[in-house]
Amino acid sequence: MLKTGRGAEAPPFLVMDVIAAANARAAALPPGAPGILRMEVGQPGTGAPRGAAQAVARALEAGDPMGYTEAFGLRSLRERLARHYAERYGAAVPVERIAVTLGASGAFPLAFLAAFDPGDAVAMAAPFYPPYANILTALGMRPQLLECGPETRWQPSLAMLEALDPRPEGLILASPCNPAGTMLPPEEFAAIARWCHANGVRLVSDEIYHGLTYGTVAETTAAGLTPSAVVVNSFSKYFSMTGWRIGWLVLPEDLVRPVECLAQNLFISAPHVSQVAAETAFDCRAELEENLARYRRSRALLLRELPRAGLDRIAAADGAFYLWADIGHLTNDSVEFCRRLLAEADVAATPGVDFDPARGARFMRLSYCGPEADMAAAPGRIARFLGR
Amino acid sequence: MLKTGRGAEAPPFLVMDVIAAANARAAALPPGAPGILRMEVGQPGTGAPRGAAQAVARALEAGDPMGYTEAFGLRSLRERLARHYAERYGAAVPVERIAVTLGASGAFPLAFLAAFDPGDAVAMAAPFYPPYANILTALGMRPQLLECGPETRWQPSLAMLEALDPRPEGLILASPCNPAGTMLPPEEFAAIARWCHANGVRLVSDEIYHGLTYGTVAETTAAGLTPSAVVVNSFSKYFSMTGWRIGWLVLPEDLVRPVECLAQNLFISAPHVSQVAAETAFDCRAELEENLARYRRSRALLLRELPRAGLDRIAAADGAFYLWADIGHLTNDSVEFCRRLLAEADVAATPGVDFDPARGARFMRLSYCGPEADMAAAPGRIARFLGR
Repeated sequence: MLKTGRGAEAPPFLVMDVIAAANARAAALPPGAPGILRMEVGQPGTGAPRGAAQAVARALEAGDPMGYTEAFGLRSLRERLARHYAERYGAAVPVERIAVTLGASGAFPLAFLAAFDPGDAVAMAAPFYPPYANILTALGMRPQLLECGPETRWQPSLAMLEALDPRPEGLILASPCNPAGTMLPPEEFAAIARWCHANGVRLVSDEIYHGLTYGTVAETTAAGLTPSAVVVNSFSKYFSMTGWRIGWLVLPEDLVRPVECLAQNLFISAPHVSQVAAETAFDCRAELEENLARYRRSRALLLRELPRAGLDRIAAADGAFYLWADIGHLTNDSVEFCRRLLAEADVAATPGVDFDPARGARFMRLSYCGPEADMAAAPGRIARFLGR
Repeated sequence: MLKTGRGAEAPPFLVMDVIAAANARAAALPPGAPGILRMEVGQPGTGAPRGAAQAVARALEAGDPMGYTEAFGLRSLRERLARHYAERYGAAVPVERIAVTLGASGAFPLAFLAAFDPGDAVAMAAPFYPPYANILTALGMRPQLLECGPETRWQPSLAMLEALDPRPEGLILASPCNPAGTMLPPEEFAAIARWCHANGVRLVSDEIYHGLTYGTVAETTAAGLTPSAVVVNSFSKYFSMTGWRIGWLVLPEDLVRPVECLAQNLFISAPHVSQVAAETAFDCRAELEENLARYRRSRALLLRELPRAGLDRIAAADGAFYLWADIGHLTNDSVEFCRRLLAEADVAATPGVDFDPARGARFMRLSYCGPEADMAAAPGRIARFLGR
């Protein structure tokens, strides 16, 4: 037996295993049976906007060779992204600081490798998006968990950061966050960003759920706050383009060339075909706003009906398309609970354990970006499962 | 100024900078001027096979949502790849050991993280594909260069490996290799693979240029030789799908689950749209074999004409679509030589420096996968540039 590396101990991103289990169960259902309600995956039920898909189809029919792009992506897409910062946030972001990436997933290793060294501590709220910690660990860096609860709406506070001794080398913020969907108030976000800049802590702001907010808290981009922050974003969520693996970074000046060199070596470029789709997606607002309206309706229905079904400890999410449900009154083993929920009620949900190692056994995440009818059917199935 | 990580010192993959320079010069040419001959980039002038592009266009027109796939890719594509090993090599590769990746570039970090630790030495021939060393270095691992020359046709030998003390943790083989295009004789390849397996050295076999060979040496896949080797391959070269960012790994049993966990975290999945194209590409043999015939003709023409133009020290490549030219009689600064070749003769070529730090200043790489007419025009321009 040959040796394996420390990376061989990377934990799974558990939701991917849940997806595989749900796929297997769906394939085994008898014909005509009601299907699985897919609430495990952070993936819109819709595909890319029609206009974007059609633009790609047209380009392919016309014989566009779709070769490598420059490492940071097509200039026209980067310019469109710069315009997006001006229009949406009033933030002046030079096109040179924008890097198109292989999804947000592909952006994190670039940002982490450029900003941090093995052994460095990078703080983040718990619960958190599991790949933050798993990618850092695979690269030899140290995730430092800030335990957050309902009292700060599952977000870190400036006071928590000021109490850290020694200070971490980095901080990941996500507002809206995954799995809780909650957001930082703009003034708290700005105060944390200023504190990071003043204290030599590299802020990595995951803004992947921007655009999917329900009006309770205003969106803030770190790109408009300090010159040292890294912004990660993606076309997967608001733009409904998960499987296209396309995202972007807004980089501080000192990381532009390092990230470009890393991207040249690690990725060469993002998929050309996805860059074409992404650029067109900006022109498909009507369809995307319809998606948002659907999430808004599903969120309202679930926040109203799930408590009646027996899930009454849910953070009222400000954005994204997740609900973080405390199921501690029902189980102390969320993995087994979710396994039974799939097997007995045909509802797929993600156990909380990889979002929060300490407390996740009494939480689960429900995603409501699937078809609206499915989301509407979920409370009934869950109520029956819980014997209501 | 905030700190940056060691990754911020990653060298560029220089060919990407050459591409950017050639793009800039092409954009600045007056209308009607003869264009740039692009011999710098390892990218077929063709796009994906027509049938593959049309399959994607049809799926998009039909509204396929193209969401995430499982981390290792669409089952049907993995099954098609397993069949490929049976048909092409007579090798039985279980579908469970095949992982679809974000190009070969995305495959290397997964393989390296699963197999090696920071500090581990991974040997490779010099000259070499620069990202091997740059990715290893970014991950804290140590590239160990085996200086190879025309006497071993730019490939390592078993004798070189046996002389290593201490032994490295890994070895990267590439046959055909980039930049020289040369191949290992099958019996030497097999002997090296057996030596690696017996001596606890993880073999990583980069087979990205398989399919692009010209009959001088038979192709060998490490997947058929030992149970411990990792095979990296891609749809970028033979299948002419560079910009689609789609490749695959054949994994040894002990790395299957570790790589799956890493892939879930680092990449989620390869682009769905590219997986659809890749699966169809296997049915487009006629077009792909036409591409191969074109490379074969361009290779023959260049090997005949370049010596007359003044480049008479070129390895006779067995495969891939590169020529590794010794220009030591013309310059001791290949970067400046290539800069002038682009500026004065409108021929873009890649200086040898990042393929071989020690000797690359007197080498350059010429790629002949571009349009056949361009390749045919190159010797004349180079002859004039050299004053012949």
